[in-house]
Amino acid sequence: MLKVPEHQVAGHIARDGKLGPLVDDEGRFYKPLQGDARGENEAKFYESFSLNKEVPDHIHRYFPVYHGTQLVEASNGSGKLPHMVLEDVVSGYLNPSVMDVKIGSRTWYPDVSEVYFKKCIKKDRETTTVSLGFRVSGFKIFDHQESSFWRPDKRVVLGYKVDGARLALRKFVSSNSLADSNSIPNCAFASEVYGGSNGILAQLLELKAWFETQTIFHFNSCSILMVYENDSFLMKGGATEQAPRAQVKLVDFAHVLDGNGVIDHNFLGGLCSFIKFVKDILQIVEERDDIDTSRLENGH
Amino acid sequence: MLKVPEHQVAGHIARDGKLGPLVDDEGRFYKPLQGDARGENEAKFYESFSLNKEVPDHIHRYFPVYHGTQLVEASNGSGKLPHMVLEDVVSGYLNPSVMDVKIGSRTWYPDVSEVYFKKCIKKDRETTTVSLGFRVSGFKIFDHQESSFWRPDKRVVLGYKVDGARLALRKFVSSNSLADSNSIPNCAFASEVYGGSNGILAQLLELKAWFETQTIFHFNSCSILMVYENDSFLMKGGATEQAPRAQVKLVDFAHVLDGNGVIDHNFLGGLCSFIKFVKDILQIVEERDDIDTSRLENGH
Repeated sequence: MLKVPEHQVAGHIARDGKLGPLVDDEGRFYKPLQGDARGENEAKFYESFSLNKEVPDHIHRYFPVYHGTQLVEASNGSGKLPHMVLEDVVSGYLNPSVMDVKIGSRTWYPDVSEVYFKKCIKKDRETTTVSLGFRVSGFKIFDHQESSFWRPDKRVVLGYKVDGARLALRKFVSSNSLADSNSIPNCAFASEVYGGSNGILAQLLELKAWFETQTIFHFNSCSILMVYENDSFLMKGGATEQAPRAQVKLVDFAHVLDGNGVIDHNFLGGLCSFIKFVKDILQIVEERDDIDTSRLENGH
Repeated sequence: MLKVPEHQVAGHIARDGKLGPLVDDEGRFYKPLQGDARGENEAKFYESFSLNKEVPDHIHRYFPVYHGTQLVEASNGSGKLPHMVLEDVVSGYLNPSVMDVKIGSRTWYPDVSEVYFKKCIKKDRETTTVSLGFRVSGFKIFDHQESSFWRPDKRVVLGYKVDGARLALRKFVSSNSLADSNSIPNCAFASEVYGGSNGILAQLLELKAWFETQTIFHFNSCSILMVYENDSFLMKGGATEQAPRAQVKLVDFAHVLDGNGVIDHNFLGGLCSFIKFVKDILQIVEERDDIDTSRLENGH
């Protein structure tokens, strides 16, 4: 009953006989343990994290729930393989808009092999990882005009410079002509998705406060996943009352290491930079709305 | 009337006919413009920063006051050369203990030459720059038992790992046997120097708040200088009332670049890591003092 996830925007994808994650109908995400040490390391992280009592409950909810490992039929037809069984974070959504943002100004870390170091730092310099402290890895947006998902080409996303990343974060919360690169994103959902007491920004700030003091883990090469349902902001009537809210989840823990008493300054710095980008968008939208309101009040 | 500064702990030093900074008796520090673009860049930074109205006054005080450039007799005997005239931040002190900490998890930045990139990243990986987000560049401590300054060897300092950096930050505020590497630093001055409403930690937190939002400058390869007078904490009687307080200054701006709307996540991440180290020392000292107090109260 397992199938290829519909809403994955980055990472290995189970397509054309390749090994990748699978989902079931009950909200579970099956991630194959990668052959090398990375799979083991990620499973070990989930084991240790899910039992860790030093991590407060309000932080635990930013991580997918872990249900152990299980042997399931692999997506590449190579028979039964061990998979981590995780919460499928998009399972409560009908048409989720999803963005994967890899946090940190480097994806390598002390004591990696020279081969791995060189591979990482090349990509870190080519993307916005070094300059911004984060890079957009992929995203998809539900387009109401087309009643389908719009997703940019992976090569385009990885080619973003500062302005490209800023534009993507605006587009992600916009309702207008997504495929048209000349149109200016209207940021129609910015206040609801990024703003508010339960919005993305509030969640990011809660994570930031934890990262300022936690020295348990270093989240190398880890991503923030942002998910929301733009339907729920457009729907009229009573159907929206239980609409799934915009949420932040941390994912991809194959390179998590012990913090050994030092904060994860690499993740924290990148997170602060990302937060500033989100704040900037909210500020522009608020200023625009203020102008609109005062125009209305003045009869224009 | 210019002479070699007594209390410099890092950077080019005007000794043995080399080019380095000089000081006068009136609290001014003369820093020669380095021959390449770096000197120009630093002078340009000081010009622009000192006039910048977007930088709040309480932040301006963390930077040496700038008095323009001036042609003065260079320390290497090569005649008159242009020097930046700066506030000598240690001039108000009798026997200042000084530490220079270079902030950031990298000292290179986008668009540098491959030669410079390779030189920087090698040193960043060899020191604690990558692992901690900062590295101690040098320090000196006034030793009351010896009535002289104690300073560790430069090669020892640059060889610090995590524990070495932590120990240096404890030693910096200790009064006991500095030269003896087996003795445990007593952190006698920790509460007065790092703690309190005017202490180092409070100043670092003020800087952090600014770095979370400022997108004007990127302070690549810049240092935090910590200065205090341990005399003032030991002296009895009325002479201490105007003792110069512990202070933080930012120095070395040869590699400052425009922020272009992005926060300096590299500096901010390292600063947060450094803050956590200072907080950890204060916490240990507070716990120890609590135990001492309760022992006294219990008559032990």
